[in-house]
Amino acid sequence: MKASLDCIPCFARQALDAARFVTDDSAIHEQVLRKMLHSASTMNMQQSPPAFAQQIHRQLRLLTSVSDPYRAVKDRFNAMAMAMLPGLIQQVEQADDPLEMALRLAIAGNVIDLGAHPGMTETDARQAIASAMNEPFCGDIDAFRDTVAKSKDILYLADNAGEIVFDRLLIEHLPSERITLAVRGGPVLNDATMTDARTVGLCDIVEVIDNGSDAPGTILTDCSDDFRARFAAADLVIAKGQGSFETLSDEDRALYFLFKVKCPLIGNCVGIPTGTHVAMRGHDLRSQARSTP
Amino acid sequence: MKASLDCIPCFARQALDAARFVTDDSAIHEQVLRKMLHSASTMNMQQSPPAFAQQIHRQLRLLTSVSDPYRAVKDRFNAMAMAMLPGLIQQVEQADDPLEMALRLAIAGNVIDLGAHPGMTETDARQAIASAMNEPFCGDIDAFRDTVAKSKDILYLADNAGEIVFDRLLIEHLPSERITLAVRGGPVLNDATMTDARTVGLCDIVEVIDNGSDAPGTILTDCSDDFRARFAAADLVIAKGQGSFETLSDEDRALYFLFKVKCPLIGNCVGIPTGTHVAMRGHDLRSQARSTP
Repeated sequence: MKASLDCIPCFARQALDAARFVTDDSAIHEQVLRKMLHSASTMNMQQSPPAFAQQIHRQLRLLTSVSDPYRAVKDRFNAMAMAMLPGLIQQVEQADDPLEMALRLAIAGNVIDLGAHPGMTETDARQAIASAMNEPFCGDIDAFRDTVAKSKDILYLADNAGEIVFDRLLIEHLPSERITLAVRGGPVLNDATMTDARTVGLCDIVEVIDNGSDAPGTILTDCSDDFRARFAAADLVIAKGQGSFETLSDEDRALYFLFKVKCPLIGNCVGIPTGTHVAMRGHDLRSQARSTP
Repeated sequence: MKASLDCIPCFARQALDAARFVTDDSAIHEQVLRKMLHSASTMNMQQSPPAFAQQIHRQLRLLTSVSDPYRAVKDRFNAMAMAMLPGLIQQVEQADDPLEMALRLAIAGNVIDLGAHPGMTETDARQAIASAMNEPFCGDIDAFRDTVAKSKDILYLADNAGEIVFDRLLIEHLPSERITLAVRGGPVLNDATMTDARTVGLCDIVEVIDNGSDAPGTILTDCSDDFRARFAAADLVIAKGQGSFETLSDEDRALYFLFKVKCPLIGNCVGIPTGTHVAMRGHDLRSQARSTP
């Protein structure tokens, strides 16, 4: 989906939040914000919002000379989620429908997003995950189950650190031998990279590749040739996170989006209220968007 | 007070809201926003927030070729407030302390601010005014009464159209023969100009001057020589609205600010929660700001 003019005040807010998250140096806060404003004043509005966030975070890394500014917080959220894992495994095993429970928890894990929630604490994340089954949900678990059962080559696009522990939980209830997990090709925000996949043990369960890009989403033209080949070859893509939806919503192929709606513009676009946990086919989300006034 | 980096996402939001308010032409929305972003990328952060809003609204008038884009809404709010006036007069006359009631209503009228509340309707304004006496209040009515009683040359700086009907109500409970009312020198947002003062009958009650500026506040260096001379000569200035506070907060002279706190940054700066109705001396607000952590 293309960025909207309404994204721009939000980009300015995110640039400032990110700069403050990464450094206490107010001169750098100002530089990051001014660079962002200058870029936005000439930005191509045909781009998706994550293409813009990618630019902001590149500037931030350049100006602070810190190659992975969110490393410490990614480690913290990985550790938090790993500590929760035994309890979550039990919760899934005891559920009437373990796959449904694992899927709902994987979507709940999408709350660990320091772009949308810059001040998020581990307590916030724990609370959000504890109430996962009470959140509004939009999707068809049985259709997801059937699609997965029929697919031989599944590409699972991870989103954030911490969250990928919940992805691990879901992947363990899917035919993991048919799954390849893709992480970001370089650090951006608290998005998961190979380091995170390794830390939470995903590399021992499935093949993990990186997409060659440092965008907080999946901008195919910015991804590596290898990744694009895997994307084209897969007969099902499971795409985690709002950034995945923003960058892949127009892809006409077998694609399930799993995310929590955090942005009211996206909510309005697909006719689903903010806060909803979504597990929907791209095709169905597009139909819903077309029928939304 | 100087603008903060936090003002910038808000300016972007305001530029977009204002453009959409004034025209349905999405190409103009984009142009206004891009111009604003470009200006903000090099803006002088020593300026007050209204200096920046002044630039946004000049651009908007230039790009739309509409010299007073808010004229219709100003007329509507003037008419609404004039229709409320007989009831308000009765309310003031029946109050235990008519001056207090008139002062509180004048501050309540400050809710009619299409910069802070772009979607404000007449119903919203009526509701806000009906609950004027229940809002949190910060000020000393008796000190205000005493200061006014001792002052011989009072300059009353008006803020918005509609709101100035409530100013009229207050002025009628002050020694009006010693009051000069100042309005903006040119259209900006829904701020009151000479047209509005005339429409609501203020020109029949007090001398009305304009300040020579199209800023949504009182930037003295941008005002006319005549206005600056009147400002310097007055032994009391009563300054309505948050824009007045933003532009005159550092003036070390007899000055009462009457406004509703609408911006959390200003609230934090002076240690007064958003939503509070304020009637305070500049000197006391500065002391409070200094003692706020």
